[in-house]
Amino acid sequence: MGRLLDVQNIEDIALGAAVLGTGGGGDPYIGKLMAIEAIRQYGPVELVTVDEVPEDAWSVAIAMMGAPTVMVEKMPGGEECVQAYKSVQSYLGKPVNYIYSIEAGGINSTIPITLAARLRLPLIDLDGMGRAFPEIQMVTHTLYGITATPFTMADEKGNSAVLSTIDNRWMETFARGIAVNMGATAHIACYAATGKQQREAAVHGTMSLAEQIGRTIREARAAHVNVTQAIQDVTNGYLIFHGKLVDIQRRTVAGFARGEAILEGIGADAGSNLKVQFQNENLIAERDGEVIATVPDLITMVEEETGEPITTEGLRYGFRVNVICMPSHPHWRTEKGIKVVGPRYFGYETDFVPVEQRFGK
Amino acid sequence: MGRLLDVQNIEDIALGAAVLGTGGGGDPYIGKLMAIEAIRQYGPVELVTVDEVPEDAWSVAIAMMGAPTVMVEKMPGGEECVQAYKSVQSYLGKPVNYIYSIEAGGINSTIPITLAARLRLPLIDLDGMGRAFPEIQMVTHTLYGITATPFTMADEKGNSAVLSTIDNRWMETFARGIAVNMGATAHIACYAATGKQQREAAVHGTMSLAEQIGRTIREARAAHVNVTQAIQDVTNGYLIFHGKLVDIQRRTVAGFARGEAILEGIGADAGSNLKVQFQNENLIAERDGEVIATVPDLITMVEEETGEPITTEGLRYGFRVNVICMPSHPHWRTEKGIKVVGPRYFGYETDFVPVEQRFGK
Repeated sequence: MGRLLDVQNIEDIALGAAVLGTGGGGDPYIGKLMAIEAIRQYGPVELVTVDEVPEDAWSVAIAMMGAPTVMVEKMPGGEECVQAYKSVQSYLGKPVNYIYSIEAGGINSTIPITLAARLRLPLIDLDGMGRAFPEIQMVTHTLYGITATPFTMADEKGNSAVLSTIDNRWMETFARGIAVNMGATAHIACYAATGKQQREAAVHGTMSLAEQIGRTIREARAAHVNVTQAIQDVTNGYLIFHGKLVDIQRRTVAGFARGEAILEGIGADAGSNLKVQFQNENLIAERDGEVIATVPDLITMVEEETGEPITTEGLRYGFRVNVICMPSHPHWRTEKGIKVVGPRYFGYETDFVPVEQRFGK
Repeated sequence: MGRLLDVQNIEDIALGAAVLGTGGGGDPYIGKLMAIEAIRQYGPVELVTVDEVPEDAWSVAIAMMGAPTVMVEKMPGGEECVQAYKSVQSYLGKPVNYIYSIEAGGINSTIPITLAARLRLPLIDLDGMGRAFPEIQMVTHTLYGITATPFTMADEKGNSAVLSTIDNRWMETFARGIAVNMGATAHIACYAATGKQQREAAVHGTMSLAEQIGRTIREARAAHVNVTQAIQDVTNGYLIFHGKLVDIQRRTVAGFARGEAILEGIGADAGSNLKVQFQNENLIAERDGEVIATVPDLITMVEEETGEPITTEGLRYGFRVNVICMPSHPHWRTEKGIKVVGPRYFGYETDFVPVEQRFGK
């Protein structure tokens, strides 16, 4: 028996997941409201560790796909993800008794809680990224040969799709096109996996890590201590820049929110600037033209006083922020992992260098 | 028991369907070769009339979707349409024992024969258009409330999709996007319908009409009589222009072959010109700037000597052609029908006028 998530836990998870979300995953506020409402209506959700899941029990990832800029304006109803979940179950022809989160990011950390509450199913304390990433194949499950098929999609109008592809990169292509046609955002269920597969392939403990980060921020605020430092302590993160947002460019391209933010240094960083490029998530940071952090390590901007994580669609001129870089999960730092989510995959001609090699003492 | 289709019948069907195809539906040659090969390998195909189909027996339309310009270069294998057929059957949870053609057009008249041969299933003598049209919702079944769902798609790489939508227009949107991502062309199965539904909603006798047209052309050529006149006689068609192709513009846009052809008049039409605009199929003809024929009536160009129908991708500078316009099926000439496939749907600011009103004596 796992532990039950209460409203405070969900508040903390949403806040902490936004730190791990590196700017992506959508607005945490909407997802949080939905999850809290679902718990009030259907009862609390049980969070179980991967060790509590039987080897042959099936679990499925539940998420929203599309441009977060649009998700903010399209409050999801809830029925769509039930529909996506049921389609996976009927395709597999097997009961799917566990729900999990595909990524740690604003809305996608809490959408699975909403569904778990509605269906009275336990949520597993893991995810497929240990952060957020922009594309469907970018889960550690891909590195272990787990297929995204059956991949089910549903929209708020009542349209749905079930996709089967020869690899997870093709799934990204097909699903992205459908999500765009569904109005730039869709509810999805995918990466069905057994308990045995989850033990090997998933990033374990992501939900409780997000909760711990959120609680740490909340307590640091209450205690009036340095919130950024508290986040660094709990994530093994490095403060890589302190600055003011002086330019922000953002466009929605092919279902993604792409763009870049320019920061002007403050304090110890005065006289320097930092350029952060993103595709839903922050991908690469350049200080005075020199790369100082890249995917798969986590680049997150937090508001300097409150430690509030800022999503890419929440970036505003004049914000004073601390930029934190956190080490990514060891799965991503393998040769296979770097091929799937390293800087070159995203078109940057630079090698991945672990953050602790650049900033560690 | 229906009659068995032999190689000569298939040759005739392919030729005649290209006349009904009004320039669209893909290259009839490839589809014909595939169907003949399938019959050689698996045995003859039984063609049954709609009256021979039990009221509660299920049938499904089999087709290729996408830009014909690409289909010509991607010789389909055969396994893909078996895959699409099986997906419909498993979605319905019922046996589907009859195959039918979604449209009378080059490749889509013979693809269903190929599948019928492989699966040893009868083909029904009907289709969903009585001609070819560019979009998925443009079948008479739509006018009778029959849904395209489940709509299944498969490509030659092994990817597949099952779509369910709230209406057939949405199906066009989703399926078109997937077809583009499948490499501009996909195998589809859709519009599952019972014998009872087919009696009400389909265009009956299309396969045998295509065969009759093909045979007529073949016999007129052998007898050295006027082939164009023979085609008019068997289709109740009108010769609306005789000319030489002097300009042709063609582009592949969003999975469609769009463009226009300009003809310079010959003989009785000397001094005039005709502009034919197409989107996979020929949609509208303007003589000296004045509309003289539109969808849903059938506008077909045939080579002046041989009566060979010319597809939009086969149009070449210098061709000497006769342009024939044939009356469309009464289903299309209703208010509902004109809304779905009339000239205004395609963006032309003109009303549909039946061809016999303009050209009849």
